[in-house]
Amino acid sequence: MEGKEISRAVVKRLPRYYRYLGDLLERGVERISSNDLSEKMRVTASQIRQDLNNFGGFGQQGYGYNVEFLYNEIGRILGLDKTYHMIIVGGGNLGQALTNYVKFEKRGFKIIGIFDVNPELVGKNVRGIEIRVADEIPRFLRENDIQIAALTLPKSQAEEMAVLLVENGVKAIWNFAHLDLRLPEDVIVENVHLSESLMQLSYNISRRQETGR
Amino acid sequence: MEGKEISRAVVKRLPRYYRYLGDLLERGVERISSNDLSEKMRVTASQIRQDLNNFGGFGQQGYGYNVEFLYNEIGRILGLDKTYHMIIVGGGNLGQALTNYVKFEKRGFKIIGIFDVNPELVGKNVRGIEIRVADEIPRFLRENDIQIAALTLPKSQAEEMAVLLVENGVKAIWNFAHLDLRLPEDVIVENVHLSESLMQLSYNISRRQETGR
Repeated sequence: MEGKEISRAVVKRLPRYYRYLGDLLERGVERISSNDLSEKMRVTASQIRQDLNNFGGFGQQGYGYNVEFLYNEIGRILGLDKTYHMIIVGGGNLGQALTNYVKFEKRGFKIIGIFDVNPELVGKNVRGIEIRVADEIPRFLRENDIQIAALTLPKSQAEEMAVLLVENGVKAIWNFAHLDLRLPEDVIVENVHLSESLMQLSYNISRRQETGR
Repeated sequence: MEGKEISRAVVKRLPRYYRYLGDLLERGVERISSNDLSEKMRVTASQIRQDLNNFGGFGQQGYGYNVEFLYNEIGRILGLDKTYHMIIVGGGNLGQALTNYVKFEKRGFKIIGIFDVNPELVGKNVRGIEIRVADEIPRFLRENDIQIAALTLPKSQAEEMAVLLVENGVKAIWNFAHLDLRLPEDVIVENVHLSESLMQLSYNISRRQETGR
């Protein structure tokens, strides 16, 4: 598998396979056919076969897929076989929500620091982690090996903070601020733009009204 | 425009246009060429022209696009010319984060109720709105015209709650729970799956390590 390029569209679908396979695994299911998986996931069986063929076809005619093997393999492709140390920059409700989400840690994303510029938040304990003042970020990054910084600051503070993070060695940013960060090419940025998601919703509501469905 | 179908891919890009045009408008920019917009948004000028041609070509050769007109038109297409009443079901950190995000209200998404099943959260005031017990949802939905319910409950409670919401007339759900809701076809569901976003990030980190970039 090493070095084999999987198309972006397939990669986007992998977390969903991973979730369904994980659910099956929890329920003790050992094998599943593409037809059964198709029914569960509500995508065509041929799409499933096509997607999973990317990994060298672990499906055996008549036997279906080995759930655990496929789950582990997709996890490995998604980089979930590794542990990531993460900091949260922005200790407001959203930063606290991310910190409290225990599933992230189970998947290997370990939050080891939370920072904020707001003195009112500094010192607050969130799931055992004390919110620190943002000034401490450079030192913290020198002293700890951090792979991911989640950026949950308001838009007005996000760009400057992102630059500071990158200057101090951060190579991957999970960005919740509603702007496009302009960072060096080797920095990985994954955006969660909640407003844009909400606009897709209002678009669909609006369309439904127009078409009278 | 009424009834004209815009491709899903273009619709997905509209919020980003809307954001950039809004920023330009705030800075008093009246007109912009596709080339200038291209540079700002880092997409090709031909992509921009192609996308915006969907709306009957408001670009005038040599004059560029009228920023305000385009902003308003895209807003109208996205349904942002209307007001939506929203409830938040799940008053934890994430629900509170959504409630505290004032930009949503500016865009016409007015949160008028927050509910939770956890008695510890009930009664807490979030930006002037008191968290109510989830049992009150059916009555609240009868007495108020609600267009959107944001679902910020844990996965284990989300499906049941979604069914209850739909039974009580909710037609659009903004789902943050990490599962695919199985609801009647006329119910609009927009998902925000944070875990999947995080997995895209770890995939990219993992790829970078493999390719040695």
